[in-house]
Amino acid sequence: MTDSGQKQEFEEEYADLGATTQNAMDIAETSMDIVRQFVPDETLADRVRQKSVHSMGDIEFQHLIEFTGADGLGDDEDAPVRAGARAVLEEADIVTDITMPKAGITSRGHNCEKRKAIGHGAELAKETGMTRTAASVLELDKQGAYDGAIATIGNAPTAAFALADCIENGTRPAAIVATPVGFVKAEESRQRIREVSEEYGVPAITNVGRRGGSGLAAALTNELIHVAKDVRTDELELELTADERAAGAAEASEDEPGE
Amino acid sequence: MTDSGQKQEFEEEYADLGATTQNAMDIAETSMDIVRQFVPDETLADRVRQKSVHSMGDIEFQHLIEFTGADGLGDDEDAPVRAGARAVLEEADIVTDITMPKAGITSRGHNCEKRKAIGHGAELAKETGMTRTAASVLELDKQGAYDGAIATIGNAPTAAFALADCIENGTRPAAIVATPVGFVKAEESRQRIREVSEEYGVPAITNVGRRGGSGLAAALTNELIHVAKDVRTDELELELTADERAAGAAEASEDEPGE
Repeated sequence: MTDSGQKQEFEEEYADLGATTQNAMDIAETSMDIVRQFVPDETLADRVRQKSVHSMGDIEFQHLIEFTGADGLGDDEDAPVRAGARAVLEEADIVTDITMPKAGITSRGHNCEKRKAIGHGAELAKETGMTRTAASVLELDKQGAYDGAIATIGNAPTAAFALADCIENGTRPAAIVATPVGFVKAEESRQRIREVSEEYGVPAITNVGRRGGSGLAAALTNELIHVAKDVRTDELELELTADERAAGAAEASEDEPGE
Repeated sequence: MTDSGQKQEFEEEYADLGATTQNAMDIAETSMDIVRQFVPDETLADRVRQKSVHSMGDIEFQHLIEFTGADGLGDDEDAPVRAGARAVLEEADIVTDITMPKAGITSRGHNCEKRKAIGHGAELAKETGMTRTAASVLELDKQGAYDGAIATIGNAPTAAFALADCIENGTRPAAIVATPVGFVKAEESRQRIREVSEEYGVPAITNVGRRGGSGLAAALTNELIHVAKDVRTDELELELTADERAAGAAEASEDEPGE
């Protein structure tokens, strides 16, 4: 495929909805236009907030997303988005906790391998009584699967706790997306991810509260892929802090003719 | 496997969370105990409401679930749950719109074949510009895939619209679970499902509002599987109306010693 053919393909592809037909692209565009009426559009973090609103069907969800950790540019709110997009561009593995978020992450527009933890560590789970997902994370970590990878946890609080333990023991994912849902330990597990994220500088996107889930985790991971695509097609300069990007957006908007 | 071995296996399996280890079962049980503090526990519809709350991590979501259509016993709120559970017991196909809800539906505790629509009808989508999911529903319907099946739509409003058209043209799913999420046509697509559900008596579980998604669709479908499991293990009498069941629950609770 030629470069322009490749670019065309990426442009025709709307990562999250998998929209490839005209109807689907219209729906996706209208939907994001509605979202942008209610969510700022200045920083990369804003793009993630927009995607969270789109995925959850809830305008207020934008206020429940947290950005922690740092990359080479700093610890501003865009750091985990930059780190995640860089990892996509470097064709890092994307490792999910269970099948569902893996199924929701687009296969197009990137060359990352999608893996899931569940299915590994069955022996460990049996021996210890820990959840299968927690055991699977520990087992994959032993194999070095999380170093430099995008770790996406959509379902299992115990997987998030296990990943946090791995980070404490020296594992360094490129970026984390963690949004387990529920009433038992889901919020606590994300809080623990935020703590190790801050302590060890591992970039992470999480939410607060009880809501979340595999659909949200897949959508936010897809936004990292989408940002990487925009970098690849020269629509976006990745290496800016959130402040620099917001200043650029304000300047561009001043240039626009008044209504 | 012996009957009691089979029963044991079903009892150890907590359908939605896929909890098979002790830790996972403890988390699942604690979580549902919390949910039951806030959601009634009298009818089969209540079980679906509980599951919606559990899946969405939101106590108030119970009020957003709608039950429409009828079965042989009537058009009470339990009708779609009875119809869905009967279909599971009869080993009907479970047909999802896309991969994600299919991935979230448990493979254990039932003998239904899980299928997904997406991937069919590519030609039709290309020719007409309709979404791939809508085209895939129409294509599968041509093959008779939806008659007598459980139709689960978690993502695509256009798939829900297409299924409604099929029902208008004579297709009769055993039960529908439809919970597309989003700002464009998601609510309208579920409203349309409710309309054909009422008009043609097809039992359907849907939600109102903009929220929803694949995780919710999978969870509600899993609850139909769970109800069927309880029927199979003689823990539940299926052929009662919601009123009869609630009356039985009230009677049982009167028998309990006072605190």
